[in-house]
Amino acid sequence: MMAGTVEQKLAAMGITIHEPISPLANYVGFVRTGNLLFVSGQICVSPDGQLLAKGKLGAGVTVEQGAAAARGCAINLLAQVKAALGDLDKVVRVVKLGGFVNSTPDFIDAPKVINGASDLMVAAFGDKGRHARAAVGVASLPADCAVEVDGVFEVA
Amino acid sequence: MMAGTVEQKLAAMGITIHEPISPLANYVGFVRTGNLLFVSGQICVSPDGQLLAKGKLGAGVTVEQGAAAARGCAINLLAQVKAALGDLDKVVRVVKLGGFVNSTPDFIDAPKVINGASDLMVAAFGDKGRHARAAVGVASLPADCAVEVDGVFEVA
Amino acid sequence: MMAGTVEQKLAAMGITIHEPISPLANYVGFVRTGNLLFVSGQICVSPDGQLLAKGKLGAGVTVEQGAAAARGCAINLLAQVKAALGDLDKVVRVVKLGGFVNSTPDFIDAPKVINGASDLMVAAFGDKGRHARAAVGVASLPADCAVEVDGVFEVA
Repeated sequence: MMAGTVEQKLAAMGITIHEPISPLANYVGFVRTGNLLFVSGQICVSPDGQLLAKGKLGAGVTVEQGAAAARGCAINLLAQVKAALGDLDKVVRVVKLGGFVNSTPDFIDAPKVINGASDLMVAAFGDKGRHARAAVGVASLPADCAVEVDGVFEVA
Repeated sequence: MMAGTVEQKLAAMGITIHEPISPLANYVGFVRTGNLLFVSGQICVSPDGQLLAKGKLGAGVTVEQGAAAARGCAINLLAQVKAALGDLDKVVRVVKLGGFVNSTPDFIDAPKVINGASDLMVAAFGDKGRHARAAVGVASLPADCAVEVDGVFEVA
Repeated sequence: MMAGTVEQKLAAMGITIHEPISPLANYVGFVRTGNLLFVSGQICVSPDGQLLAKGKLGAGVTVEQGAAAARGCAINLLAQVKAALGDLDKVVRVVKLGGFVNSTPDFIDAPKVINGASDLMVAAFGDKGRHARAAVGVASLPADCAVEVDGVFEVA
């Protein structure tokens, strides 16, 4: 299938939408209900299974590394959305992102980290990519990854 | 009322769907909006008020104990769903589970813990029980319970 | 515009609904999809930018201070809802609040803290303000604020 407009824009930024990452456990990557698509939490892992950032913000992982990892989570979200819809152009709106940052108790810049995901959504979808969001620092994340992001999308 | 198909299947596994646990505070166990049912976070407590697992994963609570506790959270979710709908057979799809694991900073197996909830949903509903999910390790949980899970369901 | 019934009730409690707080990063305060309004996580900050409570529950911030901060988060949620709808009377139901409490590992009273937000919703909307909820203790929050709350609303 020819890539749609959104994928072409992403390709121009050097981003390829890969096959979605297999869930780590007994669940699925996404569920559609009506016009809403709920996408599972995506950790910051590359398509070949390497963590983009491992460990905690505030203890070894910098804000810049965290933001790059969050960008990777966003790409993994889009991989799930493509698997669900066939074409990213069917996204009507990015509704909500939930950003979880693997943090020491004194790390207070979760918003700067999750911006890596938010910026990617706006780069991909323009105004349709502007979303509601929550960003918090959590005690730990699966596989000691630095960032996990889940999402809700309105779809055609 | 005669139990529906889903409850019969659960009964065959030795699981009885009890009255829902009363909220710990000024909120309700569920809200329906359209065909979506949002269920409040359920902690791992038995119908008689005993915690199924107390404390943190990574410091005393094992992954197996955590998964059993998550299964208890899932049963409590179903108790809320039954209270909302009267019959679990009216569940069209388990849409999303949010899993919160009471974790030390170095505990990285939240997915294995939350599997206890996911497996129960699939056991109860089959393919309709396969859901989107996020699983994170949090600093603390109410009453020092080991696991809390909330949920979104599509209902008839 | 004349304030609606809900705002009049809030005013009688001494609460003014201000302009919404600007997002800390590249996202928006709310997104409406169909009859659902997803509102971004609101931290406990006053309209003039002062934190209502800074630091962790379990280490300096008391439950009472935390509950007052959560009430401030709820007011900030309503500021977003008013910006979205023009009139709080268009809220059909408060569907779900997600409460994140900046906690030490041994703080176990997140529900009492988030009650500050829940009570405000019920005070504002009566039975329509009764919502599903999750409350967890997180490792850290943006700007070291004590409480963050996000929300889903059914709207007319």
